[in-house]
Amino acid sequence: MPAPDATAYGYFGPVGTFTHQALLTLDPPAPADPVPYATVGQALQAVREGEVAAALVPIENSVEGGVTATLDNLAYGEPLVITREVLLPVQFGLYARPGTRLADVGLVTTHPHAEAQCRRWLADHLPEAEVVVGGSTAAAAAEVAREGSRFDAAICAVVAGELYGLDALASGIADNPDAVTRFVLVTRPGPVGEPTGADKTTLVLFMRENHPGALLEILEQFASRGVDLCRIESRPTRRTLGDYCFSVDAEGHVSDARLAEALMGLYRTCAEVVFLGSYPRADEVPPDVRPGTANADYAAASSWLERLRG
Amino acid sequence: MPAPDATAYGYFGPVGTFTHQALLTLDPPAPADPVPYATVGQALQAVREGEVAAALVPIENSVEGGVTATLDNLAYGEPLVITREVLLPVQFGLYARPGTRLADVGLVTTHPHAEAQCRRWLADHLPEAEVVVGGSTAAAAAEVAREGSRFDAAICAVVAGELYGLDALASGIADNPDAVTRFVLVTRPGPVGEPTGADKTTLVLFMRENHPGALLEILEQFASRGVDLCRIESRPTRRTLGDYCFSVDAEGHVSDARLAEALMGLYRTCAEVVFLGSYPRADEVPPDVRPGTANADYAAASSWLERLRG
Amino acid sequence: MPAPDATAYGYFGPVGTFTHQALLTLDPPAPADPVPYATVGQALQAVREGEVAAALVPIENSVEGGVTATLDNLAYGEPLVITREVLLPVQFGLYARPGTRLADVGLVTTHPHAEAQCRRWLADHLPEAEVVVGGSTAAAAAEVAREGSRFDAAICAVVAGELYGLDALASGIADNPDAVTRFVLVTRPGPVGEPTGADKTTLVLFMRENHPGALLEILEQFASRGVDLCRIESRPTRRTLGDYCFSVDAEGHVSDARLAEALMGLYRTCAEVVFLGSYPRADEVPPDVRPGTANADYAAASSWLERLRG
Amino acid sequence: MPAPDATAYGYFGPVGTFTHQALLTLDPPAPADPVPYATVGQALQAVREGEVAAALVPIENSVEGGVTATLDNLAYGEPLVITREVLLPVQFGLYARPGTRLADVGLVTTHPHAEAQCRRWLADHLPEAEVVVGGSTAAAAAEVAREGSRFDAAICAVVAGELYGLDALASGIADNPDAVTRFVLVTRPGPVGEPTGADKTTLVLFMRENHPGALLEILEQFASRGVDLCRIESRPTRRTLGDYCFSVDAEGHVSDARLAEALMGLYRTCAEVVFLGSYPRADEVPPDVRPGTANADYAAASSWLERLRG
Repeated sequence: MPAPDATAYGYFGPVGTFTHQALLTLDPPAPADPVPYATVGQALQAVREGEVAAALVPIENSVEGGVTATLDNLAYGEPLVITREVLLPVQFGLYARPGTRLADVGLVTTHPHAEAQCRRWLADHLPEAEVVVGGSTAAAAAEVAREGSRFDAAICAVVAGELYGLDALASGIADNPDAVTRFVLVTRPGPVGEPTGADKTTLVLFMRENHPGALLEILEQFASRGVDLCRIESRPTRRTLGDYCFSVDAEGHVSDARLAEALMGLYRTCAEVVFLGSYPRADEVPPDVRPGTANADYAAASSWLERLRG
Repeated sequence: MPAPDATAYGYFGPVGTFTHQALLTLDPPAPADPVPYATVGQALQAVREGEVAAALVPIENSVEGGVTATLDNLAYGEPLVITREVLLPVQFGLYARPGTRLADVGLVTTHPHAEAQCRRWLADHLPEAEVVVGGSTAAAAAEVAREGSRFDAAICAVVAGELYGLDALASGIADNPDAVTRFVLVTRPGPVGEPTGADKTTLVLFMRENHPGALLEILEQFASRGVDLCRIESRPTRRTLGDYCFSVDAEGHVSDARLAEALMGLYRTCAEVVFLGSYPRADEVPPDVRPGTANADYAAASSWLERLRG
Repeated sequence: MPAPDATAYGYFGPVGTFTHQALLTLDPPAPADPVPYATVGQALQAVREGEVAAALVPIENSVEGGVTATLDNLAYGEPLVITREVLLPVQFGLYARPGTRLADVGLVTTHPHAEAQCRRWLADHLPEAEVVVGGSTAAAAAEVAREGSRFDAAICAVVAGELYGLDALASGIADNPDAVTRFVLVTRPGPVGEPTGADKTTLVLFMRENHPGALLEILEQFASRGVDLCRIESRPTRRTLGDYCFSVDAEGHVSDARLAEALMGLYRTCAEVVFLGSYPRADEVPPDVRPGTANADYAAASSWLERLRG
Repeated sequence: MPAPDATAYGYFGPVGTFTHQALLTLDPPAPADPVPYATVGQALQAVREGEVAAALVPIENSVEGGVTATLDNLAYGEPLVITREVLLPVQFGLYARPGTRLADVGLVTTHPHAEAQCRRWLADHLPEAEVVVGGSTAAAAAEVAREGSRFDAAICAVVAGELYGLDALASGIADNPDAVTRFVLVTRPGPVGEPTGADKTTLVLFMRENHPGALLEILEQFASRGVDLCRIESRPTRRTLGDYCFSVDAEGHVSDARLAEALMGLYRTCAEVVFLGSYPRADEVPPDVRPGTANADYAAASSWLERLRG
């Protein structure tokens, strides 16, 4: 692998993964040849160390849920921020070396999430096959393409099948045809981008004490300011069983007064608030701004208070 | 009555009322001879018109509840603010013209609140007596002292009894010996006084719509910022039955960050917020400041937000 | 006064009060000649002692707010329950002895609430007149009709003016032409009447401790079951300043599952819950039943639980 | 594999997994030779089909979080219930074929969770090694023991290392020495076991609509009845991104009145409530019963209501 270009984007590779495919949809596109990394952790570490300017990694899948490697690395590692998000429909195919027939497939390899998302298809069409899960769908395709591989077929993306010269024995085999994966482009912290009017802010919230009402208190910090959440996920803090932090996406931008007040409320209430960035929503859906929560309402309230204090 | 001194304090009179007695306890004392007014409304109007610098009026009684004439005048009249409060134990006596014996008393006069607070004593000691209520306990004493009065006795304060040359037939006759009345000193709006560390802020809150959850939303504006209420009272808005506003005393001063944020939240949420002043608590009890709600916590959160916005 | 008929209804008299007028609108009507009592307390005591079957008393006015004599007597006295409510538009007139002209009126008498509700009219039309308040508008009319009375006019209801042979110097003089008073018919406790589909339940709630969040907790007992409140009023508990109980009207009937669960929740949460009856709403407005809160929903949930426990 | 014994317990195998180790700690012990299954899904399906009486599967790990295969299978599959839980400290070792030295290790295999939990140790002690993840730590040990395997070492449990005749190159290599995994014993639905005084109830909650306040409403159903949650986890509903259900463990037993009322409230509020059983807590910690929420309090409230209804 040549020395990475510090202006390039890294991604969760190898070549041929869904992340790779998602990266190709970026608009504006990546500024230089993208650099694959074997794990999410390695891709993010490369950003921290300046090897690449940013990295694209998966964060959430509509079927499998949060990508814990990404969530935990962002929550517990040295500070990074999200600057963009990408949504990609997930379509899997069953790929094999040319000449293989579906009836010949006894041993399949793929990533655990792909296995989980094609489980019904596998049960219907390859009830006898054994599935061994590995690090990525692209690696599975590469392994199947390797001469002497003990695997008969890989479940992977179209691009990976094509890249490794495999034949499609079946396509569109995901149990849920509407599955979507969400990816985020992560950089080192810097000035937050301008609001677009349809933004998201990602946070990790650690409670002062893990008392039963803690989550309720956190949710009320958002609700009392009219800020909606579009994702909430509990993650273990790695201390004891039952000790959680919460990874959330809130609607709005840190420059929105209502979100700013909620953030300050959380900062005062929580043991720690990790700010993972404000960035444009891929779906461009603007937030539902309740009466009294627009920036102008906050400004008017602030002026009124100044007059009172007179 | 001589022309009032514009630096003098007015009060809910006449001479000899409990309000008069409360005014005499002010420390520092009233700057000039105080001026009695026949009604709360007249006393407050005199402040608005600059006849007097301030007026002392009753606002709440531990037995009878809120003094609606005061609450409504402050809520609906031209702007005034509270700058001090006074607490006075309420002690009633039964006063009559010299020579009257308890057994002779058939017709008693007093203020309705005094009647209500001595009802049990009256039932026990003067079961046959009729009670006619009037505008003030002092007026009742004056009426009894008037030659030719049809009333045999007045229930009033000690000062009123003495002022009008009456004899005490009984003293300490309130059913509840711990009754306390709270008075407020009201001025025209001006710069808010400095916080003392044990302050109160009085507000009147009008909902945008009178929906069932409106009061819950108001209370949450305080609770989510760790601000406690020490008084809450619903008052009709005078439009339709079931349409209320809320008169509240919140712990803290408008210069406290947590109260300021709650006030701005109310301003954004309510149809109208009437600010009736921040002033020292008569009982000098400091507020219960929850973790994360001190001014320093707010300042730290604000600095953190500025750093995030980069 | 003849011995009251134990099947008759008492009311807050004397003859000619608004309460009397409200009683005449009852449908079905009162079963026998109604019996006036001089005070709310006496009318309610007559019910307790079986002198009358029920009593009609005012409980709330759209301008003046709650009638504290009624609220406190029901909250603190021996148990009574409300079985019906009546709404009556309040119209005041200025009544004087025949021959009096408006210009002659210097001394007016009336009930304090009437004085409060006609204050603007008085300021506009009789700016020089003095107003002395007394026990009822009907008593004021009677006083004015008394030969030798020092009062020139009374503010009272039409019926009272007519009853005492007075002339109307002005009518419709209330500052708020839409003012309404609400009256309740009170009986000794017995089986609760059948639900009509548009009912109200009146309660008095005493907190275990008077902590700041207590009211919020009470409101949440209703809100979490989808029960709306149509009246809430704080009343001092008569112990110390700042110690309140809450008098509330909740939408619905004690036979409604959602209200029953809220009541049981309050019983477990509060120091004391005084149940003052479930009765038909005078305005016949049915409650807003949220999804999942109808009796059928509660029954379905209960069956499901039984199956789980299996 | 011999035909399973229908009274036996299945588990997430193969032989030598942590689940196997956890099963050996059951008290009372499994009634017959336990039956390993290759996946969580197969183990649970075997219960559904009556091949085994119950199955032990991992559900949560203090470092990695929820085991999604288990959570989703229980949430979306045919009904099953949890009857017991087991906690097991997780200790990993690095195992290799006899004669291998640490310095020789270039290619390691293990389960993705084990890889994640030993990442720091690997970075410190085997910075050059490549790690390939597979289906279980026991399978990894078996693979390393296989003649001709391309893998040099496996990260696995002690039992697996010993079972396959491997040597420990290092032990206690988990980054977090306090890591614990929680396992649940799952059976077909039947009568719920007796409460022990320290019980847990597991539920999956689907919102009617995925509106922003939905989670807050769910939490309030528990909080308003004084029921604490010891685990909450969002899981995608597999429809669209941002559409979640919540898997929760609540303190208490379905026979506790407060939990029963919360369950019925959820049943009325949610689109669907999946009841996954009430069972003894492995840590035997009794719940924090708030004043007014004990069974006796609920019974007293119910009696009071009956008396009211008369």
